[in-house]
Amino acid sequence: MATSEEFRIAGKDMIDYVIDYINTCGERPPLAKVTPGYLQDLIPLEAPEKPESWDDIKKDIERVIMPGVTHWNSPHFHAFFPAGSSYPSILGDILMDATTNIGFSWIAGPACTELEMIVLNWLVRMMKLPHVFLNEKGSPGGGSMQGSSSESTLYSLLAAKMRMIRRLKELNSDLDQFDVLPKFIAYISDQTLFCVEKACMIASVRRRILPTDENFILRGNVLRAAIEKDKDDGMIPLFVCATLGTTHSLAFDPLEELGPICLEHDVWLHVDAAYAGTAFICPEYRHFLNGVEYVTSLNISPHKLMRVHIDLSILWVKSRADIEKAFFVDPAIMRHEHQEDTIDYRHWQIPVGRKFRSLKLWFVLRMFGQENLQRHVRNQAQLAKEFRDLMASDPRFTIIAEVVLGLVCFRLKGSDEQNKELLDCVNKSGDIFITGTQLKEQYVLRFVVCAASTESKHIRFAWKAIEGAAGKLLQKEH
Amino acid sequence: MATSEEFRIAGKDMIDYVIDYINTCGERPPLAKVTPGYLQDLIPLEAPEKPESWDDIKKDIERVIMPGVTHWNSPHFHAFFPAGSSYPSILGDILMDATTNIGFSWIAGPACTELEMIVLNWLVRMMKLPHVFLNEKGSPGGGSMQGSSSESTLYSLLAAKMRMIRRLKELNSDLDQFDVLPKFIAYISDQTLFCVEKACMIASVRRRILPTDENFILRGNVLRAAIEKDKDDGMIPLFVCATLGTTHSLAFDPLEELGPICLEHDVWLHVDAAYAGTAFICPEYRHFLNGVEYVTSLNISPHKLMRVHIDLSILWVKSRADIEKAFFVDPAIMRHEHQEDTIDYRHWQIPVGRKFRSLKLWFVLRMFGQENLQRHVRNQAQLAKEFRDLMASDPRFTIIAEVVLGLVCFRLKGSDEQNKELLDCVNKSGDIFITGTQLKEQYVLRFVVCAASTESKHIRFAWKAIEGAAGKLLQKEH
Repeated sequence: MATSEEFRIAGKDMIDYVIDYINTCGERPPLAKVTPGYLQDLIPLEAPEKPESWDDIKKDIERVIMPGVTHWNSPHFHAFFPAGSSYPSILGDILMDATTNIGFSWIAGPACTELEMIVLNWLVRMMKLPHVFLNEKGSPGGGSMQGSSSESTLYSLLAAKMRMIRRLKELNSDLDQFDVLPKFIAYISDQTLFCVEKACMIASVRRRILPTDENFILRGNVLRAAIEKDKDDGMIPLFVCATLGTTHSLAFDPLEELGPICLEHDVWLHVDAAYAGTAFICPEYRHFLNGVEYVTSLNISPHKLMRVHIDLSILWVKSRADIEKAFFVDPAIMRHEHQEDTIDYRHWQIPVGRKFRSLKLWFVLRMFGQENLQRHVRNQAQLAKEFRDLMASDPRFTIIAEVVLGLVCFRLKGSDEQNKELLDCVNKSGDIFITGTQLKEQYVLRFVVCAASTESKHIRFAWKAIEGAAGKLLQKEH
Repeated sequence: MATSEEFRIAGKDMIDYVIDYINTCGERPPLAKVTPGYLQDLIPLEAPEKPESWDDIKKDIERVIMPGVTHWNSPHFHAFFPAGSSYPSILGDILMDATTNIGFSWIAGPACTELEMIVLNWLVRMMKLPHVFLNEKGSPGGGSMQGSSSESTLYSLLAAKMRMIRRLKELNSDLDQFDVLPKFIAYISDQTLFCVEKACMIASVRRRILPTDENFILRGNVLRAAIEKDKDDGMIPLFVCATLGTTHSLAFDPLEELGPICLEHDVWLHVDAAYAGTAFICPEYRHFLNGVEYVTSLNISPHKLMRVHIDLSILWVKSRADIEKAFFVDPAIMRHEHQEDTIDYRHWQIPVGRKFRSLKLWFVLRMFGQENLQRHVRNQAQLAKEFRDLMASDPRFTIIAEVVLGLVCFRLKGSDEQNKELLDCVNKSGDIFITGTQLKEQYVLRFVVCAASTESKHIRFAWKAIEGAAGKLLQKEH
């Protein structure tokens, strides 16, 4: 039962298995071919009373688990967004588990807290972000690792809400939050990810959905008009969520336009760059950040495009105090003598516990080096453009939005129903896996370059799968 | 740069390192002996441009990281609560990383969703929980893995809030949530973990802190009086958080007393059993769950006492629909043909992404078997009683609360200041690490059996460290 020597064998077995799996992943169907309930027949109803051997458990990985895995690492997986992964990231996670160092306060894990601070500073410099985001003495702002961009956005919204309540209480100490809460407005666009709507529900903040332009971009004049109207109506504009690289079509909201309006009206400007943020390590993508100096908080998720495993999303804020005060509680059990001199990251999050997540990012940055991570970003974009070019030569299809990174949005010329049918045919073939989305009035299909192992041949294979399915579909209809 | 063959070497190196680390962890000082900022001098200011070799990175684990690690795995670590860990759990996490299977919907990871459902059913049966918590067709309730008990509690509170808003809207479709939100009341006790206060702040729900009795227990008459008074005042009792095993002193609120009151007043009863919950796998602890049939939601955190690494906390609910509807959004990009027949776990959480966390629990349950996990619980309790008995024979100390599991609360007879000084002396010695807490009017010290490697000799060592420090302190004062 799990002695060191058994683990020495099992751990090394597992390393070999992982390598085999990753190298042959492309030979498995990207989308699992099982139906709901498949697993119950393969597993007993009760946990074993006695320990089982590693050999028995190992066999079950292929027998029980793998048939039901959707292979996000497969070069034929082109759905959603990439799920970051790499060998160095696995190494970091093993060390994280080994230390089991829970870093909710500095004293509970000094290395856990400080490596996070430093590695995030590395990214600030790599992306040429404002220096206010550095985790440094004297800097009012800073960065933290979060589990997801959904959490980062929620924390920003909560911080904005609590900041506004504090401010209003300074003017009127008798004020009850419930007197003003109904007046708070969060502005999102019709392209903002649904998790921001969720955040508004959780925080009980009204949200106003603003229309985007023909390029799916939130324009300054639309935001300004909405804020001014709400102010005229006695409401309190609280929070704007802009997106750099929307989920649906990878549109980039113009920070240079939105920023000054938020500044003028003292509204918290949060920027969600979950997927596309990693691209800012390449100078040619950096212009999308123009106007970032106006931003109150910024989120990018290295667990998408930076070869780091989920869950590693970053939240940078201009004012640490706004996050830390948002839901500050300081029980005696957690106090320590250094708390004025450093960061206690538990104030930046909902959970108490905190993992040593920075290890995996540190390993990735060091074992790849900046140059190989830049190469990865460029390669993903290049492959997406290759797909776009193949499709552009076929008059049956329309490319919907500009291809900037790894996403190509397209439609078969025809009805939404035809496009849904095409999606279904493609995915049922088992060759590749793509998804569709509602892009304003249109249903469009999304082709995403996901796995780091994707090569030109996989792009051509995917194109053949899609255009072949389209051919069959159109033939059937005639 | 991170090829398969480099990873084969590095991964196996890391396995050996982990075994060495775990086996020698007790020889390191449990509490890191560094001061804030220690790490900056050891790491460059910028990420490397070019890749670095595994050999260079490996050296930095001891040079850079380990001096700043607080060793939660050390048998001399007696602070907070245990951070679960084990070899099988590491194996599960490696496989989780390898598959990188993001299970936000069933289709995105059928095995990820279904193994979670099944392994949680194993626990329902191991703990003899109500069958309504089974993840089964026809069962209205179910279970899910969450990152922390803080999240589980927050989700329960949010579900209770949204359920009440829905109900009130059924009576009056014009109702605005802001008309009723100020009337909602969440009841917690003066012993409830601070994360529940945080949850109330986040959800904008008023909380009422109820006094506990001399055993730090929330009694039914206190709850009933508070609910009735609030109802008389036109408020809406919404949510009660009971605790089985409080953080401060491991008190168990009586579900049989609180449950019928919540039922009578139709208030959501959430139970937080984060640490102590694992003990319910042993029949002799099961009586603390008497009354569990009244519970609306229940949380235990296997990442404390069940040998599983953070982050793995479980939330069971009597009504899946209440959680799923709490912040339901269903974008086209995530729809799939099977969504009526199974669980899409993204509706149970704030993040979109979802890790394959069930693997580590599955590995742990199988490689230990139920009997060894029960043995672990009993062993931790036995060691705590050994410490209590040593202390009980020394008239300078008082044991504060009954020792039920791995926690012993005690005081040096004297002032709060003397106890804080004792804590300081003990921790500065570097031999062991303990913490203190505010238990109502008193400051008390907490001794916790944490690491799975803790043995009788470590208990005697800890006792000597504490009583030696007390001796010096009292001598100095005379």
